[in-house]
Formats: sequence, structure tokens, C-alpha cells
Amino acid sequence: MLKILLLNGPNLGRLGRREPAVYGTATLAAVEKAVEKRARILGAQVDAFQSDVEGALVSKIGASEGGYDGIIFNPGAYTHTSIALRDALQGVRVPCIEVHLTNTAAREEFRSVSYTAPACLGQIMGLGILGYELALLALVDYINKKRGDHGIG
Amino acid sequence: MLKILLLNGPNLGRLGRREPAVYGTATLAAVEKAVEKRARILGAQVDAFQSDVEGALVSKIGASEGGYDGIIFNPGAYTHTSIALRDALQGVRVPCIEVHLTNTAAREEFRSVSYTAPACLGQIMGLGILGYELALLALVDYINKKRGDHGIG
Amino acid sequence: MLKILLLNGPNLGRLGRREPAVYGTATLAAVEKAVEKRARILGAQVDAFQSDVEGALVSKIGASEGGYDGIIFNPGAYTHTSIALRDALQGVRVPCIEVHLTNTAAREEFRSVSYTAPACLGQIMGLGILGYELALLALVDYINKKRGDHGIG
Amino acid sequence: MLKILLLNGPNLGRLGRREPAVYGTATLAAVEKAVEKRARILGAQVDAFQSDVEGALVSKIGASEGGYDGIIFNPGAYTHTSIALRDALQGVRVPCIEVHLTNTAAREEFRSVSYTAPACLGQIMGLGILGYELALLALVDYINKKRGDHGIG
Amino acid sequence: MLKILLLNGPNLGRLGRREPAVYGTATLAAVEKAVEKRARILGAQVDAFQSDVEGALVSKIGASEGGYDGIIFNPGAYTHTSIALRDALQGVRVPCIEVHLTNTAAREEFRSVSYTAPACLGQIMGLGILGYELALLALVDYINKKRGDHGIG
Amino acid sequence: MLKILLLNGPNLGRLGRREPAVYGTATLAAVEKAVEKRARILGAQVDAFQSDVEGALVSKIGASEGGYDGIIFNPGAYTHTSIALRDALQGVRVPCIEVHLTNTAAREEFRSVSYTAPACLGQIMGLGILGYELALLALVDYINKKRGDHGIG
Amino acid sequence: MLKILLLNGPNLGRLGRREPAVYGTATLAAVEKAVEKRARILGAQVDAFQSDVEGALVSKIGASEGGYDGIIFNPGAYTHTSIALRDALQGVRVPCIEVHLTNTAAREEFRSVSYTAPACLGQIMGLGILGYELALLALVDYINKKRGDHGIG
Amino acid sequence: MLKILLLNGPNLGRLGRREPAVYGTATLAAVEKAVEKRARILGAQVDAFQSDVEGALVSKIGASEGGYDGIIFNPGAYTHTSIALRDALQGVRVPCIEVHLTNTAAREEFRSVSYTAPACLGQIMGLGILGYELALLALVDYINKKRGDHGIG
Amino acid sequence: MLKILLLNGPNLGRLGRREPAVYGTATLAAVEKAVEKRARILGAQVDAFQSDVEGALVSKIGASEGGYDGIIFNPGAYTHTSIALRDALQGVRVPCIEVHLTNTAAREEFRSVSYTAPACLGQIMGLGILGYELALLALVDYINKKRGDHGIG
Amino acid sequence: MLKILLLNGPNLGRLGRREPAVYGTATLAAVEKAVEKRARILGAQVDAFQSDVEGALVSKIGASEGGYDGIIFNPGAYTHTSIALRDALQGVRVPCIEVHLTNTAAREEFRSVSYTAPACLGQIMGLGILGYELALLALVDYINKKRGDHGIG
Amino acid sequence: MLKILLLNGPNLGRLGRREPAVYGTATLAAVEKAVEKRARILGAQVDAFQSDVEGALVSKIGASEGGYDGIIFNPGAYTHTSIALRDALQGVRVPCIEVHLTNTAAREEFRSVSYTAPACLGQIMGLGILGYELALLALVDYINKKRGDHGIG
Amino acid sequence: MLKILLLNGPNLGRLGRREPAVYGTATLAAVEKAVEKRARILGAQVDAFQSDVEGALVSKIGASEGGYDGIIFNPGAYTHTSIALRDALQGVRVPCIEVHLTNTAAREEFRSVSYTAPACLGQIMGLGILGYELALLALVDYINKKRGDHGIG
Repeated sequence: MLKILLLNGPNLGRLGRREPAVYGTATLAAVEKAVEKRARILGAQVDAFQSDVEGALVSKIGASEGGYDGIIFNPGAYTHTSIALRDALQGVRVPCIEVHLTNTAAREEFRSVSYTAPACLGQIMGLGILGYELALLALVDYINKKRGDHGIG
Repeated sequence: MLKILLLNGPNLGRLGRREPAVYGTATLAAVEKAVEKRARILGAQVDAFQSDVEGALVSKIGASEGGYDGIIFNPGAYTHTSIALRDALQGVRVPCIEVHLTNTAAREEFRSVSYTAPACLGQIMGLGILGYELALLALVDYINKKRGDHGIG
Repeated sequence: MLKILLLNGPNLGRLGRREPAVYGTATLAAVEKAVEKRARILGAQVDAFQSDVEGALVSKIGASEGGYDGIIFNPGAYTHTSIALRDALQGVRVPCIEVHLTNTAAREEFRSVSYTAPACLGQIMGLGILGYELALLALVDYINKKRGDHGIG
Repeated sequence: MLKILLLNGPNLGRLGRREPAVYGTATLAAVEKAVEKRARILGAQVDAFQSDVEGALVSKIGASEGGYDGIIFNPGAYTHTSIALRDALQGVRVPCIEVHLTNTAAREEFRSVSYTAPACLGQIMGLGILGYELALLALVDYINKKRGDHGIG
Repeated sequence: MLKILLLNGPNLGRLGRREPAVYGTATLAAVEKAVEKRARILGAQVDAFQSDVEGALVSKIGASEGGYDGIIFNPGAYTHTSIALRDALQGVRVPCIEVHLTNTAAREEFRSVSYTAPACLGQIMGLGILGYELALLALVDYINKKRGDHGIG
Repeated sequence: MLKILLLNGPNLGRLGRREPAVYGTATLAAVEKAVEKRARILGAQVDAFQSDVEGALVSKIGASEGGYDGIIFNPGAYTHTSIALRDALQGVRVPCIEVHLTNTAAREEFRSVSYTAPACLGQIMGLGILGYELALLALVDYINKKRGDHGIG
Repeated sequence: MLKILLLNGPNLGRLGRREPAVYGTATLAAVEKAVEKRARILGAQVDAFQSDVEGALVSKIGASEGGYDGIIFNPGAYTHTSIALRDALQGVRVPCIEVHLTNTAAREEFRSVSYTAPACLGQIMGLGILGYELALLALVDYINKKRGDHGIG
Repeated sequence: MLKILLLNGPNLGRLGRREPAVYGTATLAAVEKAVEKRARILGAQVDAFQSDVEGALVSKIGASEGGYDGIIFNPGAYTHTSIALRDALQGVRVPCIEVHLTNTAAREEFRSVSYTAPACLGQIMGLGILGYELALLALVDYINKKRGDHGIG
Repeated sequence: MLKILLLNGPNLGRLGRREPAVYGTATLAAVEKAVEKRARILGAQVDAFQSDVEGALVSKIGASEGGYDGIIFNPGAYTHTSIALRDALQGVRVPCIEVHLTNTAAREEFRSVSYTAPACLGQIMGLGILGYELALLALVDYINKKRGDHGIG
Repeated sequence: MLKILLLNGPNLGRLGRREPAVYGTATLAAVEKAVEKRARILGAQVDAFQSDVEGALVSKIGASEGGYDGIIFNPGAYTHTSIALRDALQGVRVPCIEVHLTNTAAREEFRSVSYTAPACLGQIMGLGILGYELALLALVDYINKKRGDHGIG
Repeated sequence: MLKILLLNGPNLGRLGRREPAVYGTATLAAVEKAVEKRARILGAQVDAFQSDVEGALVSKIGASEGGYDGIIFNPGAYTHTSIALRDALQGVRVPCIEVHLTNTAAREEFRSVSYTAPACLGQIMGLGILGYELALLALVDYINKKRGDHGIG
Repeated sequence: MLKILLLNGPNLGRLGRREPAVYGTATLAAVEKAVEKRARILGAQVDAFQSDVEGALVSKIGASEGGYDGIIFNPGAYTHTSIALRDALQGVRVPCIEVHLTNTAAREEFRSVSYTAPACLGQIMGLGILGYELALLALVDYINKKRGDHGIG
């Protein structure tokens, strides 16, 4: 059974209450539940972790090697400032897909750069909670293909 | 039945033969077939169009209003240079999701800006052909939710 | 009788339906009719041409020498990206006035540069459809003055 | 009867004597007379004011509210450096059209930015003295339309 | 017998009439004839194609694989703006040499960057029509050397 | 009774010992005591919190909604690098005033940008400890006015 | 008795009428009266001066040495463009505090730089009229402390 | 007899009292007297004018044509910001030499650009009051040479 | 006996397992042991501390004053983003030498700036583990020289 | 008989031994011999000079006037940094063609600018040793055409 | 008797023959003679040295300490690229005045920066050969004043 | 026995006399003696070379292949401007360590970039003369390890 780490960064613990016009009304618990539910269908298990502390996310990624088959990661605002998270992702052999709830390309200039994306397989943004679920689909597909199993598509 | 426009930009007509180490070996025909097949399952119909000509893509988008419920668009290299395509997308009331086969954030500097993404719902990149299929899922989900139907997730 | 080429670039074929809050509700046909009507009063004849294709506009300008006495040109989004159109204008001895419906100086940063304006007599922007008519007045005045006729003013 | 303020900035008092190869041989008095004459035909009255002092222009604009229906403004070199004039224009409810005698887009790099244009309806440049007259036409048309009268075009 | 594609971009169809002080008085037909004549001496055959449309050039390059042994390409103004043409060149296994009639390094700032040159073997500029002929010499030499034949030098 | 959160960021725990020539000799405890004393006079209660950890400050702000009526915040060096803190402030409906002990505009270039200020009511800098007290006055005044009480001024 | 110069720059003479949604409805006279009233309580006397002319403000600052103990200065738009005012402030030994009614950090990019702030003790912004009064408190406190009197805090 | 205009810009009226460590202790009156004295020896007459107002300097330069044979100009801080003064100098046929008391190249970054210098014969900086006298020597020499008289050197 | 703090930043806890082709195969424990061993020879004692949390490193540095004679610091990715760590180093009177395992000048552009180096004595990079030992030599030499002892060299 | 100066800059003396994967295995002596041989066929004589010293190259160019009819110049790394060499080329009336062995447009960013090219007729790059020979052809053709002889093509 | 080093950089050895429209027709020998003649009148002796080699100029400056009382230096194109010459000037205690024949501020952009000027007393530019003589006057005056003698002015 | 080349660039010949507050009082001879002495202990021989001429350093590096096992290089000011030295280092198979006496990261902006460091093993800066000795230790250690001998650590 595949093990997936669902990682959320700063301010995402307040999802649902934080600027709902921008980020929607669903809570982080609801997001995690939705991903876990879909994971069970795909034969995968999800561990969820959220932290506002950049270094705690670095440590979590560093510790993921061996324990997890893939990472789904919304680095929040650290996307645009953290070389440490990029280094952490590059330092483990665990494939990662980056997710953003909003379309950051359509917001402030300083949200247009992602330090973490180059260390990921790819990125999904602007599709709300569904983006997490699509990332899960792509990640499971990628891992199975690498193992010689049939992918989704 | 939903009608989706699958739009591919410059050089994508040579998919499969063009730098396969970067873009994979599947042809554009195979991509279009995969998206069409999945569309039928979701109760949608897909029209595919590819052009190397920026203005032909602008015209196609301009003509999509009324005829299509959504657009899946890989603008290829025009992503990084075309304000005309951005204006075209902003000028129609047809939701669009941008797709890139590769993780452009991990390539040359000049591929890090997207002029078209701010005029889209969101963007999926780096997930290969599967990215098109995930975009279809998200697009159908978005349209159905707006119409009051049940979404996917 | 003077012959004037009225040239419109990408997305302008959808005038009236495209973001009416920004560009107004008059169609391109209406704009062209208004310019033609005023031209008759001034003793000039107008040929109108619109294309979404950069290269088609380049070709049209290239072919204008000998056939036209002046050009009124709204290059749309190509204003901000096309060196080819600038070269085309510089390569013919036909005077041109650039027109923009909106005040591009008050919009996005990337609309603040015009590659084409330096190859024109001047530029009128932000005055809506009237801007085309004022450009016609100025163009006819300029041509007549060069020919030794009386100008408008 | 409409009241229009014709405002000219630094160095324009020397028009006709100042670099005639660039700015032409007509004096400021001639420009003002031409605009006034055309204004009478359109049923408008023009007050002309020129100053080399940035603050004097700021004050004049500040005092225009109530007294004038519109402003035609050539800010000269202050166009490219004055945030104070921009603030002044934004601070009054009097519509303004910016005019430049020359095509500043085809001159030095530092003349390519206009701080004042975003606070105006639009801008006319490169059309010489006629540009002032066209600005008057557009301004009168704009004011009449807002009042419910018939516009020009 | 070697097959060479001679490709010319926007505005080059007007060679001879377009700014002769800058680009010379020879027409494109004369250029093509000169290259063809020299090709016959070298045992090569030349097909010439000119288009003002970026996408048409992209398509032509895309279709060259298999049909041509080498490309001589003057991308005109698209040199400085087109990532699509760079992608097209990178996507085919046909060696290309870039040619410019003028010394672009001695002209406007925006002509100092070439997006296409990194996807070519090399570049010849500022040597007028002779530059095309030298490119042919170098291209034939390169192809023969790769095939094990004797080069020119 | 109003509840105010007094928040201090990295290195401020060493106030008084850290570069006293720059930051003065008063300790953080003294600053907090001074603010608390003045708060009592104004009928407010102050909770003080200091952390060197960016994420801990993010969490504290995230948890302030409901518990506090206003925030006085000296983000220290994070002022110039943290989009996460800006997002945190934007994500809660608690008014905040930013305070800096020194005049950061007169120091290194990289201290001239504040990511957090746009998410605050305003900013006071360069006035030493008194700056905190003035922020308290302004904050209480702002809250009372919003509630319909009499402000200070 | 302390003598304070209250200095206001361009467009501030129209306070109350100028963009009230941005700057509030109080007039400059009201601001000056409020500062004067509070000054009397603190044992200080205030002279108020406003000008739209950069050079007049330069002269006023130049003449303040000897006559005044401190300056409260809102340089308006000159904040972002005037090296002359910075030099003027640096050239007199009269302490100055810069005041802005709005939070300029949250407005246009070009308002993010202050040329004058480095020549001041500090800066207060975004706190409306109260900002002037807080500046007065800080200034009096600063002057008294330097003279050996008891400060406010 | 030659007539020379000695022009000094903002803050220079306070010379001697303004930052004497930077600008020296001599007053502007002393500078003017020194230049006048040396002028008499060279058979020239000097009129001195100082203003803190940019527009007043613009007007003075504009009015100098016909009245003066040359200008010695220290534009103070306007050197680095004023396009209006550059335009003014370019607009008159009176030769000008720019003078700075200090070596502006060794001071703040923003003092490294001179907008006015390109419109002058040359520039002397960093040589204190003597710089004015040397400028006078060079100016007289230049004017005499142009008239066919013997120069100094 | 000298007391040295050996400080390692984010991702360095995974040394040996993290991208061994870039960072080598020795673990952090091995690095610390090597430095401790060499320290004993030099009559010094080393305390080692590693954290992925920026604020924890700030706190550790802040607490070092009094307890340590010197710091050897590899700030990892925080080198390029942390003003807080720079402030921390500047705020204590403990000399520090910065160490990097790799030659960061030969890697990505964003690794070419060090915010922390200006607050250190110096920097050693690209020499692998030996770099830590050389830093120890230099640090002990520096401290002894300041105390009047004989240095190494 | 034409006299040509073949000039090679820094590090080119080590051609053949220096990074052969980048620059090829032929030595500078071989390059010079190849150019000389081809020159004899064209009725020209070649003098070869190589130096690592920028100033020696400046002197050589300065001394070429009168002695040589043309220059073939590979300035090596000085291409991207030397204004002195550009001035030298501009200061003599001897036509020059710039040559680079590699396609510098496809290498590091700092190799994309050429200070010397604007002072040359044109540039050939990326064609290896053959590039020198093509430069010779073009140079002889240019000189003969100017003298009224028949060119090559 | 004062000893002055007259130093000229690259390409200045060709003065008189090099672009006479820009630099004039006088040779370097004439310049040196003029300076020497004036020096004798002022009781000074001049040694002249010219080199195209940056390092030779560095060495000359390095060796000047002790032997010379002042330097007059025209660094030619090295002005804009050489940090080594700046370091050399900063490393000796010999006062230097920088001279340029032309007004570099009115030429190409890359000539607007001087690396060497911050290490000099001041700079004179655009005054032709007379600039060297004025520099001599200023230098002698400066040295005498420092020694307690009477200056010129 | 290992042979090491100790290379020093511009202005370093004046070490000890040049700005001793910045660079210390030890002469270059003393530095070379210290390195040679330590080399003997390590079983290595050192040849020292200093030049102010960039090209002489290029030549020396070019000639080092075969003759030397390693290079210790302080390029002085050329560090920040010389691509030629970078090319020279890349063109030989001799390992090099870059040394700076001062902490260049804490000095002027233009000293923050090193063109040469990417072509070196690593860099040591800010540790004074000891930095040379540490570089020797690291270089010998590196060479021995590559040869299979025991390193230092």
C-alpha cells in the first residue's frame, strides 16, 4: 500500500476562516478528509501534517525518505521565499507535486516566482481543493508507472 | 452534453518526434484520443485544434464563446510572449485551464513567466499527458458546480 | 482622392462583445463605418482590414506602399511585443498614426511600452472610437500639408 | 458655455524660439489663439496658463474644480518626473487630456514614462499643434456626452 | 545531393524596397538566386521560403526533418521575440545557421538579444548578402564533415 | 476592556544588549512594562509575546482573532522577507500597527521594503520606545472610533 | 516655549476636498488647528505653512534654523522625487518627523521610496490626522530629552 | 564685454551654514564675489542669481538668450532629477558649464546621474569654490575662441 | 580553554544521505567529531547544534554571548534569505566564520548572495569538510591574537 | 596585394589544449596557417598576432592604420568587457570582422553582450576555424568592392 | 618644486589621428607640452606617461607615492571598467584629478559610470585640452593649501 | 614533491603600504615567505608571481599546466571584472583556490560578484594572511586525496 505525505505550510491551518473570499470556506480538516477518502479508493494511505514553521516543514521532508512514496505539498507563502524547502525536496528521493488553492499567477507580483516548484514533478494551481485530489491521482499514477504497474491514464 | 475545446499551440503538432527526452514519445493524436475517451466517460465532447500561428489561436478562442463550455489550452512557447492570447482569453466568457507537459519552472528563466495564466482558472504543469486529463476533470467539475450539478470531488 | 488603410490587430474583430466594460459596446463594423463616413466628408476613401495574425498585418503594411496615402493602425496587444510590425512600418514610406481605444498608460505595466509608436507620426489613446476619427483628421491634415494643400487647422 | 483650461508646463513659453527643428516655429501665443478660435466654434471658452514652476501648475489644477469643465494639459518635462501633478489631477473632478507636440516614444528613454497620463482620460502625442485642437474636440465631445448632449461623432 | 532550406522571416519579402540605406537594394529574389547558384557549384539544392507569419515559419521548420540536410535562417525581427521558433529549431535534428544582413549589435538595444541563435550552430551578421553564401559554405562543410566527407577548408 | 497583543519578532528578546548604539539600552521587559502601564490608563490590557521563529509569529497572529481587539507588531528582520506574516495579518480581522525602533529608511537598502506594512493600518518608525506607545494611542483611538466611542484627538 | 514648524507640501491645501475616500474629509485648517491646540497643552507654539512649490518648501526649511525647535513635515508627492528637500533637511540642525496621512506602503510602487525620510528622525504614516499629533508628541519629547527635561513617556 | 550668468540652484543660498563639513564655510556671497572679481580681470561681467525653485531656474535660462554669452550653473540637487532644466539648456543657444562643489561621484548612488550635463559643454566637480573660477576661465576661453579671439591656453 | 559553537542550519542534519554527489557521503556526526578532535589538539572545546528552524538558530546565536568565544556557522539555504540571522550575528560580540561545503559561486544565481557573510570575519567555501577545520584554525588564531597569545601562523 | 591583420585575444594561444571539447583540437598555429593559405589564393597577405594583454591588442589596432587593409579579430573574453578595444577599433579607419569559434549566444549570460561588435562590419560565430576563413572571404570582398574591383559573389 | 604625474590611458597615444571630430586634432605630445609649459609658470614639474595596458597604469600609480605630489589622470575607456585602477588610486596617498576630453555624460550609456572618480579629488570633463590645464591649476592649488601656502583663488 | 603556484594580482605588490587599515601591514614578500615556509613542512614547493597586468596573469595560468600541481590565486580587483581569467582557469587542468585578504562581502556592492570563483575549487576570504596558508593546506590535501595519499584531516 502506497504511503503519501500531505504537507501544508503557513496559514493553511486557518483555512475556511482566513479570507474566505480568496481561499474558500472549507477547512483544512475537510481538505485532508477528502484526500484521505480518495486515497483509500486508490489503495493509498495519507498522513497529513501542517505547520507554520519553515524549519518544521524542512525537517518533515528530510524525514520522509524511506517512510513515504510521495509528497503532496502546498508550501503557502514559503513557496516564494524558501530556498531551504527547495533544498529539502532536492535532498530526498521522494517525488513531490506542488499544489496551490488559488491562481497565484493572477495575484501580486511577488507570488509569481516559486522556489520549490523546480524541485517537484510539477505543479497544480487555481483549482481549489480539487487540486489536491488531482495531485494525488497524478502522484499515484507516477509511482505505479515507475514500479511497472499500470497507471491511471 | 458539455462541449470542450482542446487547444494546442506552436510545435505541439510534432509531439512524439520533437525532443522526446523532454516531451515524451506519445503523439498529439494519442493525447487528443486519450482526452476524448475520458471526456465520453464524463459526458463531454471534445474538439481538438492545433496551430503554430498565434493569430489562429487568438481567432479560435475569440470564436469559442457560445460554442464551447470550457477550454483546455497548452499555449506552448506563446505562454511566455503573447499578450494577444491573454487578451483573447479575457475577452470571452469561457473558462480555461492552462496545461504544460513539462515543469517549466525547472527550465530556462524565460519560461518562468506566463502571460496567459492570469486569464485562466488555473494551471497544471509537469505531469505529462495526464495533466490534460486532470485539466478535463477539473474543468467539467467547475462547469457542473456552476450549473448546480454535483461536482466530482 | 486620398486612400487610407484602417488596420486593426488581434482581438479587435470581437469589439463590442469583448469586455464591453473596458472596450465599449460598439462593434468593429460600426467603428469602420464611422471612419468611412467622416472620410467621405474629407474627400478620402478608407479600406478596412482586421487580422489576429501578426504576420498578416506585417504583409498588409508591406503591401501598402504605392496603394495608400496613410495608415490608421490599432495594433492591439502586438503593440507591446512586435518588433516585426515596427520594422514593417519603418520599411514603407506611408505615414501612420497609432490608435488605442483605452488609456493603456493606466492599465497593466506590460502595456506601458509601445514598439510600434516610434515608427508612427504620433499616437492617440484613451479617447474611444473618437480616437480613430481624430487620427483620420490629423492624417489627412498631415498629407495635405505635405502636398502643399491647406491643412485643417 | 463650456470653460476649458489650457495648461502648458516648463519651457513651453519659449515655443517657436526653442529648438524649432524639434518643436516647430509657431509660438505659444499662436497655439493658444488657434485653440481659442476653434473653441468659439464649438461653443466653448478657453483660459490659457503657462508656468515653468511645477507647484504653480499643481495649484492651478487644484483651483480648477468648479471653475472649469475640462483641462488640456501639456506638462512638458514634468510629464516624466512629477507625482505631484498626477496627484493634483487625481484630486480634482475635472476631466483632462494630455498633449505632447512631439512623439515622445521616439525620443530619449527617459521620456517614455508618463506619470500624469494615468490620471487623464487619454493622451495625444506627435501631432504638433493640431494635437491641441484634437484634444479640444475630444474633451468637448466627452463633456457633452456626459451631460446628455449629442457628441461630435 | 544535399538539400538546403533557405528560410526568410518577416519583412524580408520587401528586400530592396525596404529602407535600402539600411538593408541594401538587392531583392529577395536576387538573394535566393545567388544562394542557389553557389549551391549548384557545391553539389547542393536549395528550396527558398519566405513568410511574415511566425507560425508558418514554425511549421516549415517542424516539417523540415527528413526532407532537408540543413537550414539557413534569417528570422528577421522574430529573432528578438520568438521562443516558438527557438523551440521549433531545437525540436528538429536539422543543423541551422542564423544570418542577419545588418550588424544588429550596432543598432537598437532590443536587437541585441537572439532567442534563436542558441538553437543554431552559429550566426553570421553584418556582411550583407554575402553572409547567406558564407552560411551555405559553412553548412555544407559541416554536413560533409559529419558524414565523413572532406570539408571545404 | 480592550485587549491588545504586543508582538515582537526576531532578535528583539535581546533588546538592550543587542547593538545598544543602534537600538538603545532599554530591555524588552522595560518596553512591555511601559506599554502595559500606558494601556491601563487608556482602559486596555496588553499581552506581550516575543519569538525568533517566523512560524510561531504566524501562528500567534492566526490565533488572535476573537481573543484580541488589536495588534502592535514589530516584525524585526522578518519585515523585509516574510510573505507568510503578511498573509497571516491579512487573514485575520484584527487591526495592526507596525512599529520599528529605528528609522529603517536610513539604513541598508534591503531594509527599505516592508512586506507586512500593506496589511497594517499604518507604521511608526524611528521614534524608539515611544513609537510603541504612540502606536497604542492610535490603535485604541481607532478601535473606539469604530465602536462609536470618542477617539483621543 | 518650544517653536514648531508645521509644513505641508503639494496638494495638501485641498485636503478635505481632494479624494476624500483616500485622504478623509477634514480640511488642512482643521489639521492645523488640532495640532496647535495640542501644542498649547504641551507648552509649544506652532507655525503652519503650506506650498505646492518644491523650492518654496526648500527655502522655508533653509530659513528654519534658529527660528524653530522642530519640524513636522508632510512632503506629499515630493517625498518620492525630491533630493532637494532631503538636502534642505540635512542642511539644517532642526529635528524633523515625516508624516503621511495614508499608508503609502500599501499604494502604488512609486510611493514606496522616501527620499526625505533618511534626513528625518522618523516617520509616521497611515494614521490619518492623528499622525500629526503623534508626531508632535514625539518631537516635543525628543527636544525635551535632549535639553535634559523629562520626556513624555 | 562678455556677460556671464552665474546660476545657483536649491539650498545653495545657505552655503557656509549648510553642512560645512561637506560644502565648506564660504558663503554664496563670497563665491559670487570671487567669480565677479576674476571676471573683471578677464574682461567679463557676471550677474548672479540663486533660486530654490526649479521653474524659476528654467525661466531664467529661457530668458538668457540674447542677454548672456555664457552660463555657469550649479543645479544642486536638481542635477539628478530635472529633465525640465535639461530641456531649458538645450532650448537656448548659450554655452553652459556645470559646476559642483563636491565630488558627487563619491557620494550617494542617486547623485551619480546628471540630467543637465549632457546639455552643457562640460562639468567640473569636487574642486570647491575654485571650480566656479575654473569654469569661468574655460567659458571665457571657449567664447573668445568661437569669436576668433585668442583663448587663454 | 576556548569554547566554540559549531552551528549548522537547514537540511544539514541529513548530510551524507542528502544529494551525496553534491555534498559528499560523510554524516553531520562525522563532521562534528572531526572538528571536536581537532579542537582538543588546539586546546578548545566544541558544542555542536543543528536546526532546520531559522528562529532557533537566531535564538542560539543570541544566547551565545558570554558562553562562547567564537562561532563556526554553516547557515545552509538561510545564507541567501535571512536578514534575521545577519541581525543576530551583528547583535552579539562573538566572532563568527561562515562555512559552505560546496562552491556556491559555481551553482544557481540565487546562491551568489550571502546576507550573513557581512556580519562574519570571513568565509570559506567549496573545500568540503576540511573547510570546517580550517575555519576552526582561523577562529582560534584570531581569538588568541586578540588576547595577546601567539597565533598559528 | 592586400594586407590583413589576424588578431587573437586572451587564452587563444592555448588553442587545441584549452577545453578541447569546447574549442576543438586544432592549435592557433594551425588556424593561422589555414588563414594564410587561403589568403594567398585570394591575393592577400596575413600577419598574425596573439596576446593575452588587453592593452597590447589596443596598441596593435592603433598601429594598424596605414599598414593594413583589414582586421580579423577574435577578442576572446575581452569581447564582453572591453570598451578600450571598442574605442581602438572606432579610432582607426581599418575595417574589421569579429570572429568567435563557439556560439557564444548558447553559453553563459555574460557572454551575450559584445562591446566590440558595434565597431566592426559584422560578426561570425559558432562555425569553428572555418569562421576565420569566411571572415577573410568577406573582408577581401568588402575591400575590393570599395576599391571598385569585383567582389567574390 | 612640485612634481606632477600626467597619466594617459588607452588609445590616447593616437590623439589627433583618432576620431578627430570627437577628440580634436591636437596630438598627445601637444597636450603634454601645454601642461608642462603651464606647470613651469606655477613652479611645478610634469612627468608624462601613456599606456594602453591597464596593469601598467596600475603599476605606475602604485609607484607614484613618494615620487609625486599629485596626479592628473585621463583613464580613457578604463574609466568605465577598471576597479583595479580605483584600488590603485585609493592605495596611494597622492591626490589625483580625473580629466576627460569629451563630455562623457552626453555619449553612450556605458560611459556614464566612472569607477575611478570616487578615488579622486574631482573630475573635469568636456573642456578639451584646457581641461588638463585647469586640473593642473586645481591640483597645485590644493597641494599648496594643504602645505599652508597661499592657494590660487 | 608538489609544485604550487602562488599568484597575486593588481595592487598586491604594494601590500603593507597600501591602505594598511584595510589590508594590514605585512608585505607581499612576508606573505610569500610564510606560504613557502609552511609548504616545506607539507612537502611542497612554492613559486610566487605577482603582476598588475591582467594578460600577464592569463599567460601565467595558461603556462601552468604540466608545471604545477595547484594554484593559490588572489586576483585582486580583477576578481570582479575579468572573464579572461575565468577562461584561463577553466582552460587548464590545475586545481585552484581563490583567496581574499578582506571580507569582500562586507564592502562595496561591486565587490560582491566573483567571475573567477566558479572556475576554482573554492574560496577563502576575510581571514588575512592566514587565508593563504589555509588555502595551501586545503590544496595539498585535495591533491594528495586525488592521488590516493592520505589527506590532512
